Amino acid sequence: MDFNYQVVSGGVTAPKGFQAAGIHCGLKKEKLDLAVIYSAVPAAGAGVFTVNKVKAAPILVTMEHLAQGQARAVVVNSGNANACTGEKGLADARQMARATAQALGISETEVMVASTGVIGVPIKIDLVEQGIKEAVKSLSTAGGASAAEAIMTTDTFKKELAISLELGGRVVTIGAMAKGSGMIHPNMATMLGFITTDAAIEEKALLAALREANDRSFNMITVDGDTSTNDMVGIMANGEAGNNRITQDHPDFGRFQAALSHIAVELAKLVAKDGEGATKLVEVQVKNARTVADARKAALTVAKSSLVKTAIFGEDANWGRILCAVGYSGAEFDPNRVDIALGDEMMAINGAGLAFNEENAKHILGQKQVIIHIDLKDGEAEATAWGCDLSYDYVKINGSYRT
Amino acid sequence: MDFNYQVVSGGVTAPKGFQAAGIHCGLKKEKLDLAVIYSAVPAAGAGVFTVNKVKAAPILVTMEHLAQGQARAVVVNSGNANACTGEKGLADARQMARATAQALGISETEVMVASTGVIGVPIKIDLVEQGIKEAVKSLSTAGGASAAEAIMTTDTFKKELAISLELGGRVVTIGAMAKGSGMIHPNMATMLGFITTDAAIEEKALLAALREANDRSFNMITVDGDTSTNDMVGIMANGEAGNNRITQDHPDFGRFQAALSHIAVELAKLVAKDGEGATKLVEVQVKNARTVADARKAALTVAKSSLVKTAIFGEDANWGRILCAVGYSGAEFDPNRVDIALGDEMMAINGAGLAFNEENAKHILGQKQVIIHIDLKDGEAEATAWGCDLSYDYVKINGSYRT
Repeated sequence: MDFNYQVVSGGVTAPKGFQAAGIHCGLKKEKLDLAVIYSAVPAAGAGVFTVNKVKAAPILVTMEHLAQGQARAVVVNSGNANACTGEKGLADARQMARATAQALGISETEVMVASTGVIGVPIKIDLVEQGIKEAVKSLSTAGGASAAEAIMTTDTFKKELAISLELGGRVVTIGAMAKGSGMIHPNMATMLGFITTDAAIEEKALLAALREANDRSFNMITVDGDTSTNDMVGIMANGEAGNNRITQDHPDFGRFQAALSHIAVELAKLVAKDGEGATKLVEVQVKNARTVADARKAALTVAKSSLVKTAIFGEDANWGRILCAVGYSGAEFDPNRVDIALGDEMMAINGAGLAFNEENAKHILGQKQVIIHIDLKDGEAEATAWGCDLSYDYVKINGSYRT
Repeated sequence: MDFNYQVVSGGVTAPKGFQAAGIHCGLKKEKLDLAVIYSAVPAAGAGVFTVNKVKAAPILVTMEHLAQGQARAVVVNSGNANACTGEKGLADARQMARATAQALGISETEVMVASTGVIGVPIKIDLVEQGIKEAVKSLSTAGGASAAEAIMTTDTFKKELAISLELGGRVVTIGAMAKGSGMIHPNMATMLGFITTDAAIEEKALLAALREANDRSFNMITVDGDTSTNDMVGIMANGEAGNNRITQDHPDFGRFQAALSHIAVELAKLVAKDGEGATKLVEVQVKNARTVADARKAALTVAKSSLVKTAIFGEDANWGRILCAVGYSGAEFDPNRVDIALGDEMMAINGAGLAFNEENAKHILGQKQVIIHIDLKDGEAEATAWGCDLSYDYVKINGSYRT
């Protein structure tokens, strides 16, 4: 779906009625490590969560809170994931929600809680509680950038974006921030995304829109294939734009959905690009699959393959590894129909290799962004996945921190 | 099941009535690159094959041939995988079977064909044909070692083993050779295993025993999670030991099965140990799972996790990554019951971390073999998987060959 939008500054505080703050509470040595986002008025809330059976305490608490479809604040710390921390961890996550609610004068169940950092170590809840008070005092409509900074772990740059579009004669703004799947510190984990919007939208429609956006974006990126215990994407919609309240049947729903998907995809690409040790962003486009599920499986499996990723790092045009990965992706397709291209250089037609231009292939693989095209010629569905190459630095970052 | 066995020399030529040869036909520059194994008398044959939808031509031909349960010869080349090679590839694989059958004076359908090496490049079939003639002339009862050498690609050592045991008052021998999932050359792939035995065993029982052995061994190892287009394990049983023919109901079936599983597991461990860039063999033992399928999923997913593998390379006791991988393995379990140990050092009980002895953990991770124990405390099933660590050399081998 096409829509006209405008990129605006301010991240999660770009939409009307939102404030945010990022502060240092002491979980990390010096860097910002605690963020709060707050809507001045009640807001609809929705979230999507890791499918890992081992869910961190804050995930469990937030899932419980969002069951009612309302959220007015987000509290998130970096430096400790509060995962695999037993009963104490659960009590600590609840305490984070309670402290935030008290400081803001809202209900505890209106607070989303998230954590990212070391797994299996109890969180220093007293530091977090003091930090929450300080963060709430620091809330401002210019606080988006510091909030985005406070959720970083091994990210090499902060990730935020905001766009405005017209919906029903009103200007609606969507702001977002995310952190990547960096795991540089032992046991670090997690992809987190937080989205704010001043759109008026019914709760069910908000959740439906978030799920679809997530399936096209954060669920289509991979750094190393490890699904974290702490992944979540949360959204708050406070209606301050004054548009007619959007439902799933509303003519504006499609445009809102498209805008949300757009911002989610852009952030997801930044996360993939900033994957640990990454030197290149890899985009895998699958087309003419039997179903969207088949297209997504194929695209994501190729993006995840260690052999494809190392070949791209080494700038080696190993198209056979690409076809091989499609083959074990679980997607339904006919191996004798598949065409594969790297950028504009065709590598294989109908499942068999071509004599290709090595020089052009090398040039394509030398770019900062590499696009892999896979045409299954077996249907009409398509999907795109994003990943990064697998470099020496990935091994260094994840293997040798303590040694 | 317990059984007494004796390790004997000779690899695939240890069982009575088998000859083999490994020669250089020219697909590689200097190294041996073509092997033939031959049974002097007709033999039952069975195979298990890659589940990749993209199957190399020799796999397709061998699947067709083994449909009748008979096999008397194996021909296998290294240096070219004959995968993604279209119609010509299929004709070439058939030609390999035909040339072998003609040279040996047996039926074409009694020949198993396998290839390993570069994907997507047509095989030089004239070199292979000449090589087959030479190999057949060189067949000998001492040829097991050269055959094992001829199927190596990036393997750093050849993998063969033979054992003898008493079955029904006769000495039965099982011999085997394998090559690992080395992919050092662009597009190299493949795990291959070939097993010979002089046991008399009915075809269906042979296939059943092979499948079970394979599920416990080659299907439980992982180097990088990429399932190749060329993987296969083939077995020939020629009855020369003179034992009463084993069927699935026969009292000896269980012991034959256990012996076959034993030899397959030992070879599989050698393959995992020799994974590209590996510095350590990692064994993941899962116990008290609800079902064997759950135990296998959990064990294999942990062995495959890039984050676990890099942590072990870096000798970092990141048990959280282990629990995280169990969590996304798809296995059914209760996260609040899981115990995790590295060697004899407990890391987590009931899903929550312990204060563990860092020094002992470091000592354990410093060994050449690291055992991860995962107790799901949720049933009675168990499984073991093997893998290796993820080192700089894996990236180097797979990324920078051409550059």
